[in-house]
Amino acid sequence: MRLRLTPRDTTYFDMLATLAQHNVTGASLLAELLGASRQERDKIAHRLSEAEHVADDATHSIMRRLNQTFVTPFDRDDIYGLASALDDCMDAMEEAGDLIVLYKVDELPLRVSEQVQVLQRCAELTAEAMPRLRSMDQLSDYWVEINRLENQGDKLHRELIAQLFDELTDPILLMKLKEIVDMLEEGADAFERVANMVEAIALKES
Amino acid sequence: MRLRLTPRDTTYFDMLATLAQHNVTGASLLAELLGASRQERDKIAHRLSEAEHVADDATHSIMRRLNQTFVTPFDRDDIYGLASALDDCMDAMEEAGDLIVLYKVDELPLRVSEQVQVLQRCAELTAEAMPRLRSMDQLSDYWVEINRLENQGDKLHRELIAQLFDELTDPILLMKLKEIVDMLEEGADAFERVANMVEAIALKES
Amino acid sequence: MRLRLTPRDTTYFDMLATLAQHNVTGASLLAELLGASRQERDKIAHRLSEAEHVADDATHSIMRRLNQTFVTPFDRDDIYGLASALDDCMDAMEEAGDLIVLYKVDELPLRVSEQVQVLQRCAELTAEAMPRLRSMDQLSDYWVEINRLENQGDKLHRELIAQLFDELTDPILLMKLKEIVDMLEEGADAFERVANMVEAIALKES
Repeated sequence: MRLRLTPRDTTYFDMLATLAQHNVTGASLLAELLGASRQERDKIAHRLSEAEHVADDATHSIMRRLNQTFVTPFDRDDIYGLASALDDCMDAMEEAGDLIVLYKVDELPLRVSEQVQVLQRCAELTAEAMPRLRSMDQLSDYWVEINRLENQGDKLHRELIAQLFDELTDPILLMKLKEIVDMLEEGADAFERVANMVEAIALKES
Repeated sequence: MRLRLTPRDTTYFDMLATLAQHNVTGASLLAELLGASRQERDKIAHRLSEAEHVADDATHSIMRRLNQTFVTPFDRDDIYGLASALDDCMDAMEEAGDLIVLYKVDELPLRVSEQVQVLQRCAELTAEAMPRLRSMDQLSDYWVEINRLENQGDKLHRELIAQLFDELTDPILLMKLKEIVDMLEEGADAFERVANMVEAIALKES
Repeated sequence: MRLRLTPRDTTYFDMLATLAQHNVTGASLLAELLGASRQERDKIAHRLSEAEHVADDATHSIMRRLNQTFVTPFDRDDIYGLASALDDCMDAMEEAGDLIVLYKVDELPLRVSEQVQVLQRCAELTAEAMPRLRSMDQLSDYWVEINRLENQGDKLHRELIAQLFDELTDPILLMKLKEIVDMLEEGADAFERVANMVEAIALKES
């Protein structure tokens, strides 16, 4: 337990929680986009892009505050790391949505929706965990569950890639779908990195 | 404003400015390579490789100095970060040039030259900004403009990728061109990371 | 030379040496997998996966210890960086083995075995160097040799990519082999990052 020489600036907890909440929005929009017709997809991808911009601004505000205040509730670098890892989740989700529209893919493999469900669950758990950083209580359930989800997502990703290579004969379609499936997996990895950082912070502060 | 206990070692500013100047050379060579015939390209790519080695040595000198001196003009980690981000710009440009030669691409999509113009402009603005780190004056114009350029580059990249998938039927040629266009976009991203770091440093030091 | 206020916790040296030793195991399994028939490959890839999990746990133990102890033999961030860079080497090797099995590749280009030999040599040199961190003695031979090996691996990688694009007409097979060859090159890059960190640490501590 390190000494606290001054009252902690608790605004960061609220800012990180808000940022994590944007990821919940992002994951829902991605799920919506998946279920939509090609005509509707453009509009949903546009909303996803806007959500990504909002998250970007939120991340930027955290960075700006960090660079201008002296006392932070925990290590400056950890807040910086968390904010930018949360932002990476959104970036991967936005990019996946973007690729689906850009590549004019008519039909996605069915199990891609399972990948997006993993992302939705990760986003929700992360948003629920952020406010608990304040007390550092009951965080281990969160990171254990994210690690379990990421393993499940990883297995799913491998199976999907094997399936694409087994079933598709059109190499250009294969390139497109592979890139989308890989990008969704990057999203799950990004949520795992957030969880790993929370674990490291919890250990240091305990 | 943090206390300065000793006179600042200003050599770092000169070293970072030199490193940024190598990126200007790299971006010009890339533009030259784009306009050249396939026979000339080998020679230009070779000069680009040599420029990359020189930049590598310059980065290494900064690292070595950082590890051996105690007092730095601003955070040691920030100088380290800036030097390695500047080096990433060069790496991406050199790799793009290398891919063009390696893949024996006869014709590149016309708008690839617009991507390279974005890189040239980014490299020039960055080289002009580095000496201003000394006084921390008038840096905001620089990072605002780089962010604008990167957004423009990003839009261009998306349009180029869509065009490649719309127009090409040869999957192998598509793979090659996509990788080149993606690598040029990585170059623009690298310049944006430099600008973001400069913004963070300016905020901290103000 | 920084002051040491307390006896150094030397456990970290042993932990890093153990982690580096896992990479030697990983590289041998990869070499074994390359020489095996498709039926045997599954089993070897499974052992490689297990080795990767063991290395993961070892990395995690280092992180946990770092977050709970106050005095470390050198910069906390450097130990963190070294452990995670050593882990990246294993990840790349495991992923390469995984791709070979996942893609059901019958025949790999002959020179892929040269890439794996580079990885084996890098892993051995790194494992031999880790215990020398304790005394910081005779480390320069190690990083110079790793840099030489990485350059050799880089040249080999470029030649292999050129060969794949020259010889293959099946775009799907090309995608698979390119990804494997690229992943092996990422492994060599990861070993180089470890060597660069050791060089930086040695300079700081001298």
